[in-house]
Amino acid sequence: MKVYIQDTYPEDFAHCYGCGYQNPEGHRFKTYYDEEAGETVTRYRPAPHHTAIPGFVYGGLIASLIDCHSSGSAAIFKMLAEGKKPGEGPAPRFVTARLEVDYLKPTPLGPVLEVRGRAVEVKDRKVVVESRLLAGDEETVRGRAVLVLLPKGMARQAQGA
Amino acid sequence: MKVYIQDTYPEDFAHCYGCGYQNPEGHRFKTYYDEEAGETVTRYRPAPHHTAIPGFVYGGLIASLIDCHSSGSAAIFKMLAEGKKPGEGPAPRFVTARLEVDYLKPTPLGPVLEVRGRAVEVKDRKVVVESRLLAGDEETVRGRAVLVLLPKGMARQAQGA
Repeated sequence: MKVYIQDTYPEDFAHCYGCGYQNPEGHRFKTYYDEEAGETVTRYRPAPHHTAIPGFVYGGLIASLIDCHSSGSAAIFKMLAEGKKPGEGPAPRFVTARLEVDYLKPTPLGPVLEVRGRAVEVKDRKVVVESRLLAGDEETVRGRAVLVLLPKGMARQAQGA
Repeated sequence: MKVYIQDTYPEDFAHCYGCGYQNPEGHRFKTYYDEEAGETVTRYRPAPHHTAIPGFVYGGLIASLIDCHSSGSAAIFKMLAEGKKPGEGPAPRFVTARLEVDYLKPTPLGPVLEVRGRAVEVKDRKVVVESRLLAGDEETVRGRAVLVLLPKGMARQAQGA
């Protein structure tokens, strides 16, 4: 069965506008692990109003998609590095320290977008994820993100909020 | 009088979800030139649902804000380099080729966010903008974007769409 990592975030930390199940107004991006490819996958169909120039997807939405895909991927790759499978207990919650997005060509608005990611570094509290975005069969965007485990001070403030 | 550069985008290219006046569902980010500081400025108050972890602003929204701030800034700095003032005719329309966002610390959700940008390179068809995001008096995020003048093929397709 496919496990979407965001469904296994602790409920105190599942309010993300991009991917939290506790945020009814958000995008609800969902990321799973494709074991055969060794890659994480997030699929999303933008809404008609998610335009940049007419006919093309808004770059900020793409950055958002890569952001949440990367923090979900970090959780997955961290669990795998510890010998756990996604779904075996709550996922560790990573936040983004640095995000890089290369818009190689315009991304057409219409098809489902697929982001596929790989870990290039997995450390105790830090994971680096590289991703590519496919619109149909065309690779239009590349991303790279540095994720860090949710700092304790941020966690405490969130739980008190 | 303060000129918001996005209000002067040609109407065929003003549908951006982040900053287009033709997109009623978008954020409507607006950027002006602070002549005294030599900086471009975009202010925005996130909605309560624009959360990352509770109490903090969603990183994807911050990336979107820096994205549109940067393309607006590119238009402003390009006009200034040509001896024109923002508002003197339609603004040139730049799109993002590369976006980098460094999340230095969590951005509190509540205060108006202010992004301030400077041009570090202005060429014929390319502008590089560096920005910092302030929440109250605190600098929480830095951005760098490479913008290119809207490619003709993209423009034609948009006008036919």
